Formats: sequence, structure tokens, C-alpha cells
Amino acid sequence: MTAITSVKGTRDFYPEDMAFQRWLYASIRAVSEQFGYQEYDGPFLERVDLYAARSGDELVREQSFVFPDRSGELIALRPELTPSLARMIAARSRVLPRPIRWWSFGPFWRYEQPQRGRSREFFQWNIDLLGVNSPEADAEMAAIAAAFLGRVGLGPDAVRILINDRRLAELQLQSIGIPTAQQSAVFRLIDRRDRLGPDAWEAEARRTGLEGRQLEQLQAALADREAWRTSDELRRFFRAAEALGAAQYLEYDPTVIRGLDYYTGTVWEARDAAGEYRAILGGGRYDDLISAVGGDPIPGTGFAMGDVVIRLVLEKYDALPKLRTNPADLMIASFEVESLEPALQLAARFRSAGLRVEWYPQADRLPKQLKFADRQGIPLVAILGPEEIGSKQVTLKNMQTGNQESVAIELAIARVKELAAAQARPSA
Amino acid sequence: MTAITSVKGTRDFYPEDMAFQRWLYASIRAVSEQFGYQEYDGPFLERVDLYAARSGDELVREQSFVFPDRSGELIALRPELTPSLARMIAARSRVLPRPIRWWSFGPFWRYEQPQRGRSREFFQWNIDLLGVNSPEADAEMAAIAAAFLGRVGLGPDAVRILINDRRLAELQLQSIGIPTAQQSAVFRLIDRRDRLGPDAWEAEARRTGLEGRQLEQLQAALADREAWRTSDELRRFFRAAEALGAAQYLEYDPTVIRGLDYYTGTVWEARDAAGEYRAILGGGRYDDLISAVGGDPIPGTGFAMGDVVIRLVLEKYDALPKLRTNPADLMIASFEVESLEPALQLAARFRSAGLRVEWYPQADRLPKQLKFADRQGIPLVAILGPEEIGSKQVTLKNMQTGNQESVAIELAIARVKELAAAQARPSA
Repeated sequence: MTAITSVKGTRDFYPEDMAFQRWLYASIRAVSEQFGYQEYDGPFLERVDLYAARSGDELVREQSFVFPDRSGELIALRPELTPSLARMIAARSRVLPRPIRWWSFGPFWRYEQPQRGRSREFFQWNIDLLGVNSPEADAEMAAIAAAFLGRVGLGPDAVRILINDRRLAELQLQSIGIPTAQQSAVFRLIDRRDRLGPDAWEAEARRTGLEGRQLEQLQAALADREAWRTSDELRRFFRAAEALGAAQYLEYDPTVIRGLDYYTGTVWEARDAAGEYRAILGGGRYDDLISAVGGDPIPGTGFAMGDVVIRLVLEKYDALPKLRTNPADLMIASFEVESLEPALQLAARFRSAGLRVEWYPQADRLPKQLKFADRQGIPLVAILGPEEIGSKQVTLKNMQTGNQESVAIELAIARVKELAAAQARPSA
Repeated sequence: MTAITSVKGTRDFYPEDMAFQRWLYASIRAVSEQFGYQEYDGPFLERVDLYAARSGDELVREQSFVFPDRSGELIALRPELTPSLARMIAARSRVLPRPIRWWSFGPFWRYEQPQRGRSREFFQWNIDLLGVNSPEADAEMAAIAAAFLGRVGLGPDAVRILINDRRLAELQLQSIGIPTAQQSAVFRLIDRRDRLGPDAWEAEARRTGLEGRQLEQLQAALADREAWRTSDELRRFFRAAEALGAAQYLEYDPTVIRGLDYYTGTVWEARDAAGEYRAILGGGRYDDLISAVGGDPIPGTGFAMGDVVIRLVLEKYDALPKLRTNPADLMIASFEVESLEPALQLAARFRSAGLRVEWYPQADRLPKQLKFADRQGIPLVAILGPEEIGSKQVTLKNMQTGNQESVAIELAIARVKELAAAQARPSA
């Protein structure tokens, strides 16, 4: 019959792909816990109402997988986590001790055209600090992002974190006479600046209602790299980031505004130095979101990072780790049926001693079995043929050096542990 | 505004819930790797064709979330993993070295009535051995299940693994004159025996076309606990399981048949001793599935375990672990603005030394800060008030003993590591 294909924009994680996901998760976990954050997760399905009018129309109406379930209720495959976080916090806002420091790594879905750096099903790291409205809390977020980048081998020469503050941006818009009602539209316009060419962007600016003089003033504001000095919040933000050792990654950038409607303060994202990847990670402050989903007002700040772009960036800057996919310390070779039970018993003994043991499950020729162990990167092979069984010995073959040695079965565990400890084995 | 609720049958994972998921994943990973299995995963969305006519009609037509995507293609939220595994293996059947030993832990969805032990969104451990058709391969699967149960503290007195073989069951059906065409229906009937009462089951048996004499013979076959001795496969299976140290969990049970249509050999599931939980984990041999999705024929054997029932079983047998949710080794208390920068710098120094450090983000009264650390189970608090800053010292408070001591800042890292190492901290 014909092969059945996978769904467009989804990925299969073969063991070599999964090894990367595991390494990424382990890196994310280490950094999140270094700052004292607790892991949580929301459901993967949410009612579409949760997103409507808060995340921005585009995300829900145009980019989400939405479907009626069998009872007719409209369900979304979650396109982002922050609304679920807000719902969960709102549900326990009276009892959760604050500050709330939570992180998560899980799957998300967006119905976008699959392309390099974008898949319809992807994973995302989310990390948030709730219950505190201070520039130092925002700086902690940026310091976490910087610690992650440093840990995975992406220095400040490769990736920069660009910061802005919507409170400052709002003042700038006010000062050039843009009314409050028009701000949200102008923010979306600024957010689209890098994606459109200059001409297309100016045309869109005119459609948004910006006149010649105002447009010039807006362009000037977007070019002013010193405006952060007028903002108390940004000054405190940069001072705290410096104390946290993250300053070398950070830069004020008035063109960063972020697409989501719920941000109320700092907004920031990481880009690579070559400008190829625009939002390696990104986030900001959202002080009204918890009350918007029915809870007490609780301020929040956080960011998210997808797994697809970071992998491309690591590849580009030669920082992808080399990882083993087979976890076994040892493979046990197989002979005729009569030596099967002693081999399985030996495997069980090794496992009880804490070793990871793969058993070659049929009596193929020994060279074929050794070739398998070699291709899998298994460092040791234990050979228990009829001869060894007769003399209560086992032959240990070191696959890196080719050395072979015979040891008494009762001494085998100790010897295998010695040999395994002597071999470096990078793994996720 | 009104609170937005979550979708029926989904779960929120607050940190205390997530701690269990992490512990479960870590246990599953340890056991899977102990047997040399490699982690992988499929996509969470698959085309509905992948399941049609292979998993059994009920699972796809009645129990899956199925929806057309924006291009009109029918998509399913995966209700199980084995068809995705088969598709992935089929796509690389010529190049993957065999044996293939793979495991996975990820989300699945079934549109069932939510109840105790069932949610619409759940996680499942899947583990499979492909490329080998032998009773020893099946025995390895059962040994993995037994090793997992032993590791999480569920002894053979609490949970039993019940085994049957569809090849043996087919012979039994043939011997009582049930034609091959009717076998699949009778298997489904046997599978439903425990869920229906005896009367309802007999009525359904008659609807399936079983006459009085045949029904009696079927009842007799389902009561015969010694029939496995007539099966070469089951005799070898039990011998290998014994060699692998798993025998004490295993029992032949002719009533175990499993609901999925693709099984071709051994079928088995774990039940608790009290008979409350019917399929704590379950699996079997499926030798035709890879060719059915378009690959070369490759035999396979495996099992799956959901996260919802195992948690209830652990709870029932008092084997739920106590887990910390806050990862911090240390909390840094906060004072007035002037001591903010030194506190953040100290946090950064501790973190560079590999410590996990939470910083209390505002200058609340010290008792309030200490109470927070206590509720979070953070074992140490570092106090860096104006006095300490003046004398270049930091006060360390041990939250378990209440002891306080002052140490010079440059000696603080070494002292904190000593104190942290002295404290037992179970965690996932």
C-alpha cells in the first residue's frame, strides 16, 4: 500500500532529533532552576475565548488551529502559553504565595506557512515572574535569557537582546501628537517595520493615518538610541541587568515593540548579529492580563523562546552540541539458544548494578553484532559464548580501543564500571 | 469579567502536579535507558488515514478528536503512538539499523467521558522493540514493565502483569469451531468481558453469534490457566522472563486480549491486585503494522502506560513520592534600594558557582521574606542588609535548624555549598 505521510508543518523526532530536544530542555531547565523558577504547564487545548481580543486578532483568527469539539464548543490548539498562565494564576490568585516564578517547555501550534525557522507544531520555553512590578524583575528576565545564551555557547557577539519600553514609546507617540486611540495601530506598524521594505512600510504608515511631518518625527524617534535615558524604568532596568552580569547582551532599541496586544511595559527580543533571525526569544511586561481573564490584578513579566529558530541559530554559530543517541553502557552479544538464558541473566545482573545494558536479540554472526554496537556508539560489548559459559567468564571488548579481556563473571560488574567510567560520554 | 474555564477533560499542571510528571518521566527514562532504549517522538497531529482500519474503529471514529484543518485535510489529535511509530519506521525501513529499541513519553487525546482514571488529554509512555520476532523480545518488554513497577515501589503483591498470546487464543477459537472471519469479533467480545456484567456479556456473546455449546467451550477456555503450556512461544516467553528477573510479576491469563486490532502475538496488561485498575499498562506484538503503513515488513512488540491511572495506583498503594517543587538552594532577602545592587551581584556570584538562587524581589519585612522561603521549602536564606554590606559579610540562615551565622562574602560560596550538601533534598 502507499505510504501515509505526516501532516504538513509537523516534525518527526527520530532519536538524533530527540537528542537535541533533550539537550535543549536540559539547558532550559538548568537555567530556569538556577534562578529558582518552578516548572508547570497548562493544557494543550484551551477554549478559543481565552485568546480572543487579548493576544491580538491575527494570532487567533488567522494563525491558530481552531475547531469545534463533539459538543460544539470552539477549541484552540494553544498558540502561546501566557493566556493559560494568566487563567491558572487567576484561578488561584488568592492562595498562591508571591512572587510566582514559573517556567515551562511544551508544544504549541500555529497555522502558518511552513518555512525555514517556522513549523506549525513547535515547542516553546516560557518563563514568567508574577506579583512584582519593578524594573529589577524585568532585568531578571533579561538576565535569564542572557544566562541561557551564554550556557548554550551563543556569546553577545552572536546574539543581542534588544529592549524597549511601551511606556516610553507611548510618551514618544504622544509627543508627536498621535492620539491614544491610534497607539495600538502605530505599535503594530512599528512591529512590522523590519518585515516590510522601507517603501511598503511608508505606504502602510500613510494608511495608518500618519502625515508627512508626523512620519518624519516617528522615524526620528525610531532612530534615537539614547531616549532610554529619559526613562526611570529603563535606567533602573539597565543598572540591575549590569549587577546580574547580563549587560553585555543588552541594548536599547526603540524599534522593538512586539506584536501581542497585552504588553504594558518593557518589551524585548533577541536577534542574531547578522540580522537573519528576528525573534530568537522575546517577551515583556503584562500587568493587566490576569485581571483580564477574571483574577485579581497581578503584574507579570516574562518571555518565550521557540525550539525551531534557536536550533538554526546554534547551527549558524557552530554551537550545536554533538550528542549520543544510544544510552547503553554495554551491549551483550548473543549466541545459540543454549547460551540465551545465561546472557539474559548477565544482562539482569548488570542492570541491577545500575548499568544501562542493551542485549543483541538474535544469534547473528559476531562481526555483525559488533558492527551494530559500533554504529550505535555503544562503548563496550560483553561476549558470553559457549566457551565463556564453560569457564564462568565473560569477554569484554572495548569498542574504542579494540582491546579484549576475559574476566570472571562475578568480577564483571566491577570491571565494566571501571571501563565505563574511563570513557567520556557526552549525552543529553 | 467572568473567569474563563479550562476545556473539559484537560488538566492544569501547577508546580506540585508538574513535580509528579517530572518524577514519572525521570523514572520512565531511567528504566527505558537501563534496557538500552533511545528516546524519540512523533508529531502530535496526524492524518486520520493513519489510524483508520488499523487501530480499531472505535478508537478513531468514536474516541478521537478529529477536525479539518484550514486546507480541508482531516487531522487527528493522536489517540495513540504506535501508528506514528510504524509510519516513522516505514519511512526509514531500509536504513535504520536493527534491532530498533525506542521509547517516548508525550501527550495524547481521546474524546471520552472524563472520569476517575480518564482524562481527554493525557500522557503516555510508549516503548517498542522492532526487527525481532521472538518470545525473548516479548519477554524483554514485560521485564521492562516489571522493572518500572519495582522502581516506583509497586511490588508483585500490588500489581500483576497478565499475559496471553493471540496465536494461542486463535487456536483455541478454531478448536471450538469459530471461523477465522469471526475471530476479530470474538476477540472484541473477550476484551469487553470485564467491563460488562456476566449476563450482559452472555447476551452480547449471543449477538456475536456464539451458540450455547460454543459459549460453554469459550467460557471453559477462558477459565483454563494452564493452556499456555501448549504454546511454544509462551513457554519460551516465561523462561526468558524468569532469566530477566521479572517472573514474580507475570501470570498467564486467557481473558486478556486487548482492544486494538493490530496485535498478532503476545498481548498483556498490568492490573492491580484489588482489580480496581484494569490496564495500568498494556501492549503486545504487532508484526504487520509497518507494512500496513507502507514500509517493508518489520515485526514489533511494545507497550504503553498512561500517566493518569499509574498516579491513582501509586496513591492507592501509598507509593506516591514526596517531592519539592521549588528548586532553589538559597534565597537572597531584599532590603532598601541601596542594598539592591550588592544583593543582585551576590546572587549572580552564587549562580556562577552552580547554585540555584531565588532572589526575593522587594524590600518586605524580613519575617515575611523568611516565611515565604519556609513555605517554598528553600533550605537557606542569605541576608545582605546595610550592616552586612558595611562589614563585607553575609548572614546565612538555615531554615531547617533556625541557626544563623555570618561569613565574609568571599567565603560565602564555599560555606553555602557545604550547608547545601549537608541537607537532604528529594526532588524530581
